[in-house]
Amino acid sequence: MSRIEVLREDVSLDAPTLIEGLPGVGLVGKLATDHLSEALDMCHYANVHCDGLPPVAMYGGGDPDLSTPVRLYADTERDLLALRSDVPVSPSAAIEFGGCLEGWYDEDRVTPIYLSGIGREREEGAASDLFGVGTGGASDRLADTGIAPPPESGLVSGPTGALLSRAVRTGTTATCLIVEASPRFPDPEASARLIEDGVAPLTGVDVPVTDLREHAAEIRQAKRRLAERMQAADETSSQARPLGMYQ
Amino acid sequence: MSRIEVLREDVSLDAPTLIEGLPGVGLVGKLATDHLSEALDMCHYANVHCDGLPPVAMYGGGDPDLSTPVRLYADTERDLLALRSDVPVSPSAAIEFGGCLEGWYDEDRVTPIYLSGIGREREEGAASDLFGVGTGGASDRLADTGIAPPPESGLVSGPTGALLSRAVRTGTTATCLIVEASPRFPDPEASARLIEDGVAPLTGVDVPVTDLREHAAEIRQAKRRLAERMQAADETSSQARPLGMYQ
Amino acid sequence: MSRIEVLREDVSLDAPTLIEGLPGVGLVGKLATDHLSEALDMCHYANVHCDGLPPVAMYGGGDPDLSTPVRLYADTERDLLALRSDVPVSPSAAIEFGGCLEGWYDEDRVTPIYLSGIGREREEGAASDLFGVGTGGASDRLADTGIAPPPESGLVSGPTGALLSRAVRTGTTATCLIVEASPRFPDPEASARLIEDGVAPLTGVDVPVTDLREHAAEIRQAKRRLAERMQAADETSSQARPLGMYQ
Amino acid sequence: MSRIEVLREDVSLDAPTLIEGLPGVGLVGKLATDHLSEALDMCHYANVHCDGLPPVAMYGGGDPDLSTPVRLYADTERDLLALRSDVPVSPSAAIEFGGCLEGWYDEDRVTPIYLSGIGREREEGAASDLFGVGTGGASDRLADTGIAPPPESGLVSGPTGALLSRAVRTGTTATCLIVEASPRFPDPEASARLIEDGVAPLTGVDVPVTDLREHAAEIRQAKRRLAERMQAADETSSQARPLGMYQ
Amino acid sequence: MSRIEVLREDVSLDAPTLIEGLPGVGLVGKLATDHLSEALDMCHYANVHCDGLPPVAMYGGGDPDLSTPVRLYADTERDLLALRSDVPVSPSAAIEFGGCLEGWYDEDRVTPIYLSGIGREREEGAASDLFGVGTGGASDRLADTGIAPPPESGLVSGPTGALLSRAVRTGTTATCLIVEASPRFPDPEASARLIEDGVAPLTGVDVPVTDLREHAAEIRQAKRRLAERMQAADETSSQARPLGMYQ
Repeated sequence: MSRIEVLREDVSLDAPTLIEGLPGVGLVGKLATDHLSEALDMCHYANVHCDGLPPVAMYGGGDPDLSTPVRLYADTERDLLALRSDVPVSPSAAIEFGGCLEGWYDEDRVTPIYLSGIGREREEGAASDLFGVGTGGASDRLADTGIAPPPESGLVSGPTGALLSRAVRTGTTATCLIVEASPRFPDPEASARLIEDGVAPLTGVDVPVTDLREHAAEIRQAKRRLAERMQAADETSSQARPLGMYQ
Repeated sequence: MSRIEVLREDVSLDAPTLIEGLPGVGLVGKLATDHLSEALDMCHYANVHCDGLPPVAMYGGGDPDLSTPVRLYADTERDLLALRSDVPVSPSAAIEFGGCLEGWYDEDRVTPIYLSGIGREREEGAASDLFGVGTGGASDRLADTGIAPPPESGLVSGPTGALLSRAVRTGTTATCLIVEASPRFPDPEASARLIEDGVAPLTGVDVPVTDLREHAAEIRQAKRRLAERMQAADETSSQARPLGMYQ
Repeated sequence: MSRIEVLREDVSLDAPTLIEGLPGVGLVGKLATDHLSEALDMCHYANVHCDGLPPVAMYGGGDPDLSTPVRLYADTERDLLALRSDVPVSPSAAIEFGGCLEGWYDEDRVTPIYLSGIGREREEGAASDLFGVGTGGASDRLADTGIAPPPESGLVSGPTGALLSRAVRTGTTATCLIVEASPRFPDPEASARLIEDGVAPLTGVDVPVTDLREHAAEIRQAKRRLAERMQAADETSSQARPLGMYQ
Repeated sequence: MSRIEVLREDVSLDAPTLIEGLPGVGLVGKLATDHLSEALDMCHYANVHCDGLPPVAMYGGGDPDLSTPVRLYADTERDLLALRSDVPVSPSAAIEFGGCLEGWYDEDRVTPIYLSGIGREREEGAASDLFGVGTGGASDRLADTGIAPPPESGLVSGPTGALLSRAVRTGTTATCLIVEASPRFPDPEASARLIEDGVAPLTGVDVPVTDLREHAAEIRQAKRRLAERMQAADETSSQARPLGMYQ
Repeated sequence: MSRIEVLREDVSLDAPTLIEGLPGVGLVGKLATDHLSEALDMCHYANVHCDGLPPVAMYGGGDPDLSTPVRLYADTERDLLALRSDVPVSPSAAIEFGGCLEGWYDEDRVTPIYLSGIGREREEGAASDLFGVGTGGASDRLADTGIAPPPESGLVSGPTGALLSRAVRTGTTATCLIVEASPRFPDPEASARLIEDGVAPLTGVDVPVTDLREHAAEIRQAKRRLAERMQAADETSSQARPLGMYQ
């Protein structure tokens, strides 16, 4: 049975925003949520037990206690949740997770912000373009913060696409930030852009991203394998694609 | 659960004709419904939620609101519906969709016109042959408008074949227009022929197709990838094939 | 739901014989039933709706009305039914069909004659050997008409094998004619032999087969692709094989 | 529904021994049961209808009556049953068959002797080693007849392994004779050894095996293809393997 | 139905410790439990019948009685159980087994110690690093015995990972020892380290491991094939992997 197991009953959240960071193009979502959790010193708030996720156990460096490979981290002060995953997530497991989350929403009224890359090579040093789309009234919030929709039509696929597809179906509110990112390498710069110009204005939470920018080369190297794996495993990799490219 | 979610309760239709445009040989159906929707300025009328469709979310260029990849567009004045898809559709998802549509028919009495290509290379500038077949009394309407059946026996397969097979099984009325089209490239000329000499006489709706003809080279280029993909993925590509060819 | 949909309530049959012609080695069954239907001017009697058959729609040359790819044809005067298929049939779909047919038997008491090739190359102009096997008392009828069993042990597989296996299991009467046929090409001569010395004496129906013999080269060419396809797709191709060959 | 269909109600058996002969390494079991059935002139006693077996029909040379590809033969005088198969049997179909047999046991109390080869090349003319293992008290009977267990630990796999695994699980009595046999060719000599020094002492039934030895070369040639097929299709081939080899 | 079949009702255990030895990286768990069972002369205590395990039967050298390929061995004096397997175990079969074990726990209160290798080549003669992780309060016991967690984050996968993932989900106590081991060969030295510095301090049971060290070359050779097989079949091979490596 799928469920969200809260580990910290002492942590109280009031209508929090959930930042989703499942693996995908440029690893932008994963890099962003990993960075947010560490920069804001978020606590390990819940384990996610979901049918369809790989049956593995995760251990943190220097910590003897095992946990699940997909977890929620919380910042009670800023009313933030971050969804972090150490394994690839299939679209069907994502939909399952979406169901869990929703049952759990009722009490906590969580508003999700999904993060996706759109594969596009760019010049060294050029800034990534950032776009926003959504459903269930999310467009107002995007307009307020000046985040424009992509100029070309497109599709969001992978686990993030599955979660968004579920939100469209159920009519719930969900925002998706889409940032141009390298289709071949981990892209910490794109991830920094996502936080600075997307997550920050939408949530009102300021997070320094100098680390992500300064250690870009290092991070690119360290996360290279996961990025390659994600590139190969199309289905479990979240991404936005313009219809022009697809068709 | 599969269902058709009407987005525009203000749009009223009276026994409309549905033009189906699922991806297939020469992309003739997709090009035709995309063109019809734009040329007639049809409104985005309904989202199609169907088990078996890829779990992805779609965004239109410049529009922040997400929708489903398979959608219905409506023209209330001409009592027309167009079925547009931005993803490949498997025969089983098509049958599922057929069931949804039928539950929904009862109130609105929709009469479908299916569009299929039959792969055949032709000389530069030569016109495509156009044929019509159907079930549940559709042949009378075809005879009235002078659209002849194909001279050779054949099969319609792919999602359109599945929808027709369902119509044969349930005994409902369905017309299928079959146009000769390039088996290898998007074929805007064949699509123009389909509209001009098939959809127009059957529905009494006049739609200029000069655009499709004038921008043929451009469209062929833009939709090349989807056409290639459709060629490879036999099952999700609608097409008619003469039994001679098949056997 | 699988069912046999009778299209001609005006056609009455009295304990008819069913000639089965599913695709298999040398296409002998398909060629025989196609020939019988045309030579005897049999009418399109019923559509076969069977879960497991490919979801496609079939049109006859010059006829605008769609039908199913597997159909029954009838000759009321001679009390004959012919099962014709324009698609490959999997063993499980054949078993499903067998169940339908049986529910329908009760009223009409149909006695089936199954047709199978046994792959064997022969000299140009040499006659094919013809054998008969059966279950549920069919051997008496075979003995009466002088059709001997094969000298060597063997297996009948593919959709015809599945139908026979079902007959063995349920204890119903079924005859299977086995003719030596080319394992690589459509074999109209073997099919002619099947009709002349098998179907004719068993049913008392005389059918000229000169056409099959005279247009052999042409038919071989026209049906070449289906024969190749059948050769590749072992499971959906009916055939008899001596155990010696198999083992 | 799986069941054992007795064809000869006139044959009465009193707590018979069942000799199993499913295809496997060296085809030792199949050669042995084929030989026993013919040498003892056993009658075709029952057809085995089992979900999971290939849906094919079998005919014997010169006999027009179809039967199942897996059958039981009986010798009422010696209270023997032989299980013969003309098709590969998957482990899951074997387990299904085991269930059928057991329901049927209750009345007839059948004691099974399973036959397996253990692949090992040997010198021309050298005798095969023969071993015995079992469950549910079978070891006493083996000890009484002087058939020793294999010196090395090992596993029995394939359909015979599945039947033995079922016997271990249900605690029923079952003996398994394991003979060294060629891993690459049909091995009539090993099969003769199995009958002479295994089946004979365990059942008290004397069967001349000169035929198997004298026609060894011929049999090897005739059954070559099935042996090759069995070698390739690991799962449906019964065999014993020492753990040393496996590990 | 999955169940643990106790063979020795005379053996009584009081809240025993279970040492798990499913095949994995370096075969460290299997080598350790095989060694423990033999060195402590543990008795064959129970057969494990589990849906999902290969349907094969196992025989011990010189012993005519068949058993299951996955078995429990017991030492009543030291209150120890060892889980030994002669076949690869899939994660889903492992989860099934975990369920069986738990139903059976209630009476016997078994505390499991899982064993896993973490693939890392090391210098000839260099000692393997040993780490410990756990869930449900296991960390206290690890801290007491001075076994530190791995310095880097990581995942445990394969059947052992599935069992640990189940323990995390159900909140039961489970310890996992992780030892550096050869990713390519059986690693008896790593296995000796696991027993000496992991199993011994945790259980208070002293087991000489000189044999494992002295016959290392021999064991490496004998178990080479299983190790290769495990390396290829990623899913059924238990292992820990640092996230750095994985990502």
